[in-house]
Amino acid sequence: MERVLVGQATKLIGEEVKTSGFIEAIRDQGKIKFLMIRDISGIVQIVVMEKADLLKVASGLKLESVVEVVGVVKEEEQAPGGFEIQVNKIEILSTPIEELPIPVAEKGQEETNIQQRLDWRWLDLRKPEKALIFKVWTEMESAFREYWTKNGYIEIHSPKFMSTPSESGAELFEVKYFGQTAYLAQSPQFYKQMAMAAGFDRVFEVGPVFRANPSFTSRHDTEFTGYDAEISFIESHEDVMEEESKAIQSALTAVKTGFGSEIKKLYKREVIIPKLPFPQITMQEAKKILAKLNVQNEREGDLSPDEEVKLCEYMKVKTGHEFLFVTEYPVNVRPFYHMRKEDDATLTKSFDLLWNGLEITTGAQREHRYDILVAQAKEKGLTPESLKYYLKFFKFGCPPHGGFGLGPTRMLMKLFDINNVREVTYLYRGVKRLEP
Amino acid sequence: MERVLVGQATKLIGEEVKTSGFIEAIRDQGKIKFLMIRDISGIVQIVVMEKADLLKVASGLKLESVVEVVGVVKEEEQAPGGFEIQVNKIEILSTPIEELPIPVAEKGQEETNIQQRLDWRWLDLRKPEKALIFKVWTEMESAFREYWTKNGYIEIHSPKFMSTPSESGAELFEVKYFGQTAYLAQSPQFYKQMAMAAGFDRVFEVGPVFRANPSFTSRHDTEFTGYDAEISFIESHEDVMEEESKAIQSALTAVKTGFGSEIKKLYKREVIIPKLPFPQITMQEAKKILAKLNVQNEREGDLSPDEEVKLCEYMKVKTGHEFLFVTEYPVNVRPFYHMRKEDDATLTKSFDLLWNGLEITTGAQREHRYDILVAQAKEKGLTPESLKYYLKFFKFGCPPHGGFGLGPTRMLMKLFDINNVREVTYLYRGVKRLEP
Repeated sequence: MERVLVGQATKLIGEEVKTSGFIEAIRDQGKIKFLMIRDISGIVQIVVMEKADLLKVASGLKLESVVEVVGVVKEEEQAPGGFEIQVNKIEILSTPIEELPIPVAEKGQEETNIQQRLDWRWLDLRKPEKALIFKVWTEMESAFREYWTKNGYIEIHSPKFMSTPSESGAELFEVKYFGQTAYLAQSPQFYKQMAMAAGFDRVFEVGPVFRANPSFTSRHDTEFTGYDAEISFIESHEDVMEEESKAIQSALTAVKTGFGSEIKKLYKREVIIPKLPFPQITMQEAKKILAKLNVQNEREGDLSPDEEVKLCEYMKVKTGHEFLFVTEYPVNVRPFYHMRKEDDATLTKSFDLLWNGLEITTGAQREHRYDILVAQAKEKGLTPESLKYYLKFFKFGCPPHGGFGLGPTRMLMKLFDINNVREVTYLYRGVKRLEP
Repeated sequence: MERVLVGQATKLIGEEVKTSGFIEAIRDQGKIKFLMIRDISGIVQIVVMEKADLLKVASGLKLESVVEVVGVVKEEEQAPGGFEIQVNKIEILSTPIEELPIPVAEKGQEETNIQQRLDWRWLDLRKPEKALIFKVWTEMESAFREYWTKNGYIEIHSPKFMSTPSESGAELFEVKYFGQTAYLAQSPQFYKQMAMAAGFDRVFEVGPVFRANPSFTSRHDTEFTGYDAEISFIESHEDVMEEESKAIQSALTAVKTGFGSEIKKLYKREVIIPKLPFPQITMQEAKKILAKLNVQNEREGDLSPDEEVKLCEYMKVKTGHEFLFVTEYPVNVRPFYHMRKEDDATLTKSFDLLWNGLEITTGAQREHRYDILVAQAKEKGLTPESLKYYLKFFKFGCPPHGGFGLGPTRMLMKLFDINNVREVTYLYRGVKRLEP
């Protein structure tokens, strides 16, 4: 007999099915036992009665035991969800050998503290509201990828070992590499630009990026998943913004279709599909608005987290839109490879994308002209020697291009209104956390 | 005017189009110039004539210059492909500032040696037959993912930083980690098993894996992309093999549909869609066959590369199938976490998958019973202390489960009949190669 998921079993009324999962609850009434079984698709009530051997097996059960049951699906008004399975056979596949260190399904308990939950992450993830985050991630990533593959992007898997830093010398992890030192890529930036020099036209990459960031904030980690895209033959950064908006719109449409009602049920959040085009303002305009709102100008030419929140609140009222592109960041807050504006060389053809007060993306048109790129690198105090492998990409013909990097965990934080990146990462890594 | 790809332009006969790309060839006939322009979709002939200013721009062109042209698409029997674009406007977007270090499009040249081509990888990748490899990878990965997402798998992005080795202490990269030492994951093995303990039911992961392998063979690298899957509530490793076979069948179907004719044209290779089920033999049977074929038994209980080739040749004739599962590897050649056979504890419930003589997968049912797992670890000389975070996954109920890891570059080697992993990796990393 093929196993069916709990979610499927409840559609097979009157049939005998095999299903399996974790014991979420046990209610003992002597000659009859009610079990709640949980699998990835849902929870169903199991009724064990009459036969002594069944009750004997069932009496060996604990919370979080893993069982396989064979039984007949019945409609039952009093059962949670309106269904139950009347068991003919039950087998214990695995049972806890120790007391559960954190509660999984017990009701009425306070949420255990986050460090404990991270220590026992696999127990924490058994809760349906936690598993939902990763179902949504799967759907979201699948939709981003579908957008990209349908629009002619090639996927690359660029190396994480580098001989030189990809972004700046700071926050870099060193690896012992056969007597040399290698560095872990802080982004696929250089290598997605290499794909443009290779004529790949448009590429995307999904992969880990590494930042030796010593901070302990709720937004930072030492390793996270990045979504990166780069496209050739653009006129300006606006072309990149348009592509990104379309990809995000299509991802959120898929999330709403697949999981909108579950997100609403478990998180009381509505998934809103953003309209195109996303609103945009320049950094200069943003700063004027923030001044009018009496928000302190904490970072010249850039936005502090507080400024991002206030700016988004204001713009959301004004535009009715949750997303906001901020463009034209000044040269001093952007890396050397961002292209500068033709009519004002103090500004870059760059943008950040904010979603409800959180930066989820940085993007730009890149400088593809060798001489200008070298000059911009020197201006930032970088030596052409330290960048020699990168700079060579631009020596033999390179299309104008631009791209963006997006943090999926930041999108998930906004989708679920969760303020800590630890909760939306499968296994968080930080300064003091390498385990489990 | 929106840019169209060369491949689209040739369908717009009589229309004025904007297109762009690299200069593949220049043929100068005085008052008329023929250019070949190459983009990711193809190559088209461009005719520049009459107007002096156009010819002047065109005279500044070099091989591999990047241009944008506006012109009218004409059918022209004598043009390669039967089309040409008669130019009204031409603009040079980027031009080589040095002699090309390796040829890109010149005909009649010997293939440059591989080290040179890897040094200038982005020029090498401009060749249509090289770019094809990554178009096929994109398609293949997309199909694997579609199989998984349609069948209820959750995608995970597991951490690459670990506090302990995931496989064995050998071939491990060390990272300086805020005064501690971290290790780079040699596979997502432990963390995909953690997902099973978390009740995720079925998961997949695509990501980099790191092996400090000091060897220089054509199969080995220090960093490569792994496809990993793990499924719960299996009866045996056979369930895993069935899932893998279906995923591979669906991936090769997609590759044949999307790129079968291009692979045939550029590589003279036929993509064959494998029938289900894939044939399988036990290791014991395999060794008997090899003995009959007088192939030297180089590795007791395991297969050498030469044995893999000979075995596959023999079995392909016998079964008509390019794939072969070899099962029941003895305990001594498998890691401690492979489950052992109920009727013969010297053998594991494990398999390798060979494709035309090359191992592309290792898989197994895993031991999910805590006490047995601890005993098997000790038997292999591992201390429970070194595995303590991993072993905890099995203490609080864990479904029976199994999975496999597959190397996409190995699949590409077989698809294209390319014998060197360097050629099918976007940017190869090895003992002596961290650049570009």
